[in-house]
Amino acid sequence: QNPDGDKGILERLDAGEIVIGDGGFVFALEKRGYVKAGPWTPEAAAEHPEAVRQLHREFLRAGANVMQTFTFYASDDKLENRGNKLALTGAQINEAACDLAREVANEGDALVAGGVSQTPSYLSCKSDQEVKAIFKKQLDVFTKKNVDFLIAEYFEHVEEAVWAVEVLKESGKPVAATLCIGPEGDMHGNSPGDCAAKLVKAGAQIVGVNCHFDPLTCVKTVKMMKEGVEKAGLKAHYMVQPLAYHTPDCNCQGFIDLPEFPFALEPRILTRWDMHQYAREAYKAGIHYIGGCCGYEPYHIRAVSEELAPERGFLPAASEKHGMWGAGLEMHTKPWVRARARRDYWENLKPASGRPLCPSMSAPDSWGVTRGHADLMQQKEATTKDQLKQLFDRSKNH
Amino acid sequence: QNPDGDKGILERLDAGEIVIGDGGFVFALEKRGYVKAGPWTPEAAAEHPEAVRQLHREFLRAGANVMQTFTFYASDDKLENRGNKLALTGAQINEAACDLAREVANEGDALVAGGVSQTPSYLSCKSDQEVKAIFKKQLDVFTKKNVDFLIAEYFEHVEEAVWAVEVLKESGKPVAATLCIGPEGDMHGNSPGDCAAKLVKAGAQIVGVNCHFDPLTCVKTVKMMKEGVEKAGLKAHYMVQPLAYHTPDCNCQGFIDLPEFPFALEPRILTRWDMHQYAREAYKAGIHYIGGCCGYEPYHIRAVSEELAPERGFLPAASEKHGMWGAGLEMHTKPWVRARARRDYWENLKPASGRPLCPSMSAPDSWGVTRGHADLMQQKEATTKDQLKQLFDRSKNH
Amino acid sequence: QNPDGDKGILERLDAGEIVIGDGGFVFALEKRGYVKAGPWTPEAAAEHPEAVRQLHREFLRAGANVMQTFTFYASDDKLENRGNKLALTGAQINEAACDLAREVANEGDALVAGGVSQTPSYLSCKSDQEVKAIFKKQLDVFTKKNVDFLIAEYFEHVEEAVWAVEVLKESGKPVAATLCIGPEGDMHGNSPGDCAAKLVKAGAQIVGVNCHFDPLTCVKTVKMMKEGVEKAGLKAHYMVQPLAYHTPDCNCQGFIDLPEFPFALEPRILTRWDMHQYAREAYKAGIHYIGGCCGYEPYHIRAVSEELAPERGFLPAASEKHGMWGAGLEMHTKPWVRARARRDYWENLKPASGRPLCPSMSAPDSWGVTRGHADLMQQKEATTKDQLKQLFDRSKNH
Amino acid sequence: QNPDGDKGILERLDAGEIVIGDGGFVFALEKRGYVKAGPWTPEAAAEHPEAVRQLHREFLRAGANVMQTFTFYASDDKLENRGNKLALTGAQINEAACDLAREVANEGDALVAGGVSQTPSYLSCKSDQEVKAIFKKQLDVFTKKNVDFLIAEYFEHVEEAVWAVEVLKESGKPVAATLCIGPEGDMHGNSPGDCAAKLVKAGAQIVGVNCHFDPLTCVKTVKMMKEGVEKAGLKAHYMVQPLAYHTPDCNCQGFIDLPEFPFALEPRILTRWDMHQYAREAYKAGIHYIGGCCGYEPYHIRAVSEELAPERGFLPAASEKHGMWGAGLEMHTKPWVRARARRDYWENLKPASGRPLCPSMSAPDSWGVTRGHADLMQQKEATTKDQLKQLFDRSKNH
Repeated sequence: QNPDGDKGILERLDAGEIVIGDGGFVFALEKRGYVKAGPWTPEAAAEHPEAVRQLHREFLRAGANVMQTFTFYASDDKLENRGNKLALTGAQINEAACDLAREVANEGDALVAGGVSQTPSYLSCKSDQEVKAIFKKQLDVFTKKNVDFLIAEYFEHVEEAVWAVEVLKESGKPVAATLCIGPEGDMHGNSPGDCAAKLVKAGAQIVGVNCHFDPLTCVKTVKMMKEGVEKAGLKAHYMVQPLAYHTPDCNCQGFIDLPEFPFALEPRILTRWDMHQYAREAYKAGIHYIGGCCGYEPYHIRAVSEELAPERGFLPAASEKHGMWGAGLEMHTKPWVRARARRDYWENLKPASGRPLCPSMSAPDSWGVTRGHADLMQQKEATTKDQLKQLFDRSKNH
Repeated sequence: QNPDGDKGILERLDAGEIVIGDGGFVFALEKRGYVKAGPWTPEAAAEHPEAVRQLHREFLRAGANVMQTFTFYASDDKLENRGNKLALTGAQINEAACDLAREVANEGDALVAGGVSQTPSYLSCKSDQEVKAIFKKQLDVFTKKNVDFLIAEYFEHVEEAVWAVEVLKESGKPVAATLCIGPEGDMHGNSPGDCAAKLVKAGAQIVGVNCHFDPLTCVKTVKMMKEGVEKAGLKAHYMVQPLAYHTPDCNCQGFIDLPEFPFALEPRILTRWDMHQYAREAYKAGIHYIGGCCGYEPYHIRAVSEELAPERGFLPAASEKHGMWGAGLEMHTKPWVRARARRDYWENLKPASGRPLCPSMSAPDSWGVTRGHADLMQQKEATTKDQLKQLFDRSKNH
Repeated sequence: QNPDGDKGILERLDAGEIVIGDGGFVFALEKRGYVKAGPWTPEAAAEHPEAVRQLHREFLRAGANVMQTFTFYASDDKLENRGNKLALTGAQINEAACDLAREVANEGDALVAGGVSQTPSYLSCKSDQEVKAIFKKQLDVFTKKNVDFLIAEYFEHVEEAVWAVEVLKESGKPVAATLCIGPEGDMHGNSPGDCAAKLVKAGAQIVGVNCHFDPLTCVKTVKMMKEGVEKAGLKAHYMVQPLAYHTPDCNCQGFIDLPEFPFALEPRILTRWDMHQYAREAYKAGIHYIGGCCGYEPYHIRAVSEELAPERGFLPAASEKHGMWGAGLEMHTKPWVRARARRDYWENLKPASGRPLCPSMSAPDSWGVTRGHADLMQQKEATTKDQLKQLFDRSKNH
Repeated sequence: QNPDGDKGILERLDAGEIVIGDGGFVFALEKRGYVKAGPWTPEAAAEHPEAVRQLHREFLRAGANVMQTFTFYASDDKLENRGNKLALTGAQINEAACDLAREVANEGDALVAGGVSQTPSYLSCKSDQEVKAIFKKQLDVFTKKNVDFLIAEYFEHVEEAVWAVEVLKESGKPVAATLCIGPEGDMHGNSPGDCAAKLVKAGAQIVGVNCHFDPLTCVKTVKMMKEGVEKAGLKAHYMVQPLAYHTPDCNCQGFIDLPEFPFALEPRILTRWDMHQYAREAYKAGIHYIGGCCGYEPYHIRAVSEELAPERGFLPAASEKHGMWGAGLEMHTKPWVRARARRDYWENLKPASGRPLCPSMSAPDSWGVTRGHADLMQQKEATTKDQLKQLFDRSKNH
């Protein structure tokens, strides 16, 4: 339906088009039984291609314009780190992931993006040469498989992301870079604006954030990035791929530090209506590459597509199985259920958790035992650079 | 791994084995973009077989011993009811669903169960002959495709369920029957115990409940069924396939009447740890066929399988990608995340919703505008037979 | 303003008048610094008469028709139980309390009620003779001081309450009796209906409940008492003096077992608007003596008086300092605050706790460590007679 | 017990003593039936002196070193503003209030502070001469009655507070000044630091905040004031008299804008244990004059006194009726209640609201209808100077 199959990512964004990303694969496939929480590695691309292919296809039907290769944490150092030797080599996994993404991308109007992410080598204080060599091995596969563009994503330290961008730029393909940071900046105290400027200077044409925070926090952070890039006299496109979890109680480290991570995040999952709001806010902020990360299911991406259908001019394939704003309830036998088939009902509903013994917010783990509102405030104040450094040092030691 | 491939459902249950069911397909496939909320019909079995096959496979990997044919609401009267003519006939959909279930069942140790559910014909006060003819058409397909046993599920009125059992019994195959009721009984005020006795007398060898209420409420209801069957001097096996949503605030009509149904139930989704508790409670109650319904994802069924692994003697295939009780976190870089790799952490965690503007419970819609705790109490008292009848009459009129 | 000063309690109730009670003194005076939580004894009547007099006066101004003598836990055995010898004798305290109640009652249209409550002697399994002797000592003071009627209140065991009624009846004055029970009945498993019938047979002309549960639960319990009395072919007047705390999560032992008792109950305090609803429900249930117990402040009683002003024909003195339904806000400078000066605003408001790290319900202490909704249900089921007996035995041992 | 009866406020603070303030009278007396919410005027000082005297006495027993005259909103322009002519003149009310404060102060070790607060004249844009004349009339009474020191409190605009300080300084008595602002500063966008510096330059020897925000927010604001004063090279003492309500969801206008103000704030009331934390945090921040405002009951001030007893060297009189950290429960008959008689129990308890249909936070009224976490964030961003000015202009028009 969308006739843009031949345009590259930059051509689309330069033309003012909205590009819709896919959702995160590791969380979605963990729920389906193909990824192990903890290691979070993507060997399923080679072991269970039918499962990975099906998830790609669902995001495509939901309106995604990008199929990201399922190569998160697929660097050799990370794969080895898992503790038990893999029968599969890193190259095999990366190649299988490229093939699956391309196969499904060809079923519709989608581009293939090869992705790299942060490495254990950087956290172990390896040199830039060593870290870059890690990225280069993945890039070799992406080049061989001729992906359409590249994404350096999920970096907590802008320095490592800059190194990744520098490697990816060698390919001559467009490069996007997203950090997993919030408004307080990266783990060394670089503000979102400064981080973004560094990435653009390194050659990234698209910058933004992914993972770690909820959609509105991520949109806010990308706004700060945009301001930083513009203040530095630079130009870029912007992208955002947030969590599908409400995380108003996060500290600077994001949802990793919430006590519910990763096995009890269910009460935080966003509804499709939250996604409508997110998509609108992102678009209003000048962010034109809008996708998702951990927690996203295909219906979340469909909601993004439906919110932006007026701008895009079409609905995604999966909307065939969805009434806009609950219209599918119009023929329900009960009048009070039929009464829910309208936009303002869902926009104003404050959904209950069904969990009366549970709180509405948590205190992040890293700041120790806390109590009451007092601590929420103290924790915010605690987020000074000194404490960040202490925290960072601590995490490096382990 | 499990060497019981040749045993039928009754042989397994008679031998004291635990049978693990699958999860509900309509909600899971709605999230994936293949089922429309409102009609909830299963045409995807014919339209998008790869999506249905993949979901079967995920439940199989999670430990399910039963592949239910994706034939929910696949009766001819329901399919016509959708308002627009289907290109596919009811028989085509039912046949496709049987083929998919059998294909995946053969990949492991699973039985195929053909399923029928409540009909618009009954609600329109059609005669028992007319309603039974509807079920008979589906049964003809199940017989032709030689499913292993039959399930009459999701009935709010025991009378219609009895009719369904009477039809299914003609096949000579084992018959299970589950109502979508809670402790207050069916829509005519029949108690769970009375309902169960009626079903057993009609010939059902397995009875229980599915859908409409959360796991613990369902287990409680099946306990009441068991007491009723035993008090009537009858014998049966018991099964339970609940929601994966917390619904402490439901009235007798279940989650349909919650204001969040069906598009804002996310904060109520059970964690895998809730599933451990559910599986244990169900087993302790003497229920040996333990599965799921709306809201279940494959990891929920895996958690049931993992909780009952000591009794079953094996873990499911998908546990290869799961550390028991969070063990996958043992190598995390942050010490406070590693500290979550233990059973008592997850058992005692009270997960936050991240939604401070939302309540923890809702007042069901059908009883009108309510406020405060007062109303929760009044609503419980309101659940008298008189009001049920009024409500039933009202719903029949629409 | 109310010309009924000469009518006794029974004449008022027989005439169909509404009698408004006062609120609980021990909690109100604990907040003011005159009662020690734990012992809860009323020596302040003699030690700090100005504080007790002032509280009486505030309830009188709020519309109360009864001044209860501040003699809760003022039996000799309880006073001795405190561990340190009192300089004041029990008689001195009881006499001082009578004088204060009479002094303030004479300032308006109020009756004086002398009150006795449950004794340590009963819990220590003393004989009926011994326990009755304890009550008799207090009754001697009430007779000497010529109170208008008598109340046996706060009994968990109907047997002890019957003994108290038998003693109080000797005075020839009207006798009211209230148990601190909920819908599940007393600590020996006597239902509310049976308890009430026993009390009426023993001679109580007014029966009901006080303390331990929130207003709507108490109204429900008194309804059950009324049904029991009527079923037994008896007649009585009914009274209710509940907590001013929301306690939907209580088990049969009431708020004592909530983890917040007694020093963190603040988030549960009822608003004045909750009181309007309570007063209306109580009146509709045929309860004409409507007051309060622990947690009540004078403004709570004023709200009861204001709700029932149409029936009573007048507003209380303290309404001079209160606009009905928030009318006092009509001249506020901010338009959005003025918008709150209306009944439906306050009736529909769902007030936030400002405590995002706290749950909305607790699991009562006595049933052990619990988790999730599951436990709420199990705890309800746990309230069997067997467990009650175990619990009772346990508490007797300590 | 405290031998400092002869020392003035500055001598005490200069000597490093902790001065404990009283709690707010208008809210406490509203609950008792003597103040009308909306006008909030203090005519009860003359109409019902026994009620005002008793409240003074309770705060004195709780450990307060200051009896503030009950002269809040007792300026002539405010009293006239009430709409109906008072039988009492402003001077009569102010004089009666001084007499009551002195009478009770003499019963213990307390100073009398005469208080003035913001005026309708200022909001109506009257000139500094006119506004100052209003304050002067109250000051004349305070001079005649020879109060020990003066407090200008509850000012939203630092400009008006400076005018008040300038008037009060004419008396030659020590002057304290507290604004009702939070970390975002006053209604004209002056930061807390700048506000404090202005007040000190105008002659105030003690500066701080009162009302409008919860204790920890107020402590944070006074810290910012302290930094501002020190940065300006000035010196002062610091005081804090916050709400006894949790208000994490306030915008810059404080609790007035919360939808619960003023008749449904109950779920937000602080426990005594929250007060311990507050007192400790205030003291650690270098604030030595520590009291309370709206929502405070005598037991809240007692908790402040008990927390700081090690520093002060004595417990207040009312601690005779209070076991430290719940010690009064040590002899309870139930073992699980006895188990609550310890500090860590109460420090770690997260008290439930008993209100499952209510949220934990509200969206302040002034920013319009909002939904979800998104709005909490937007609302924070909305607090720009532009919007403040709009808001201010709007409030001036009414």
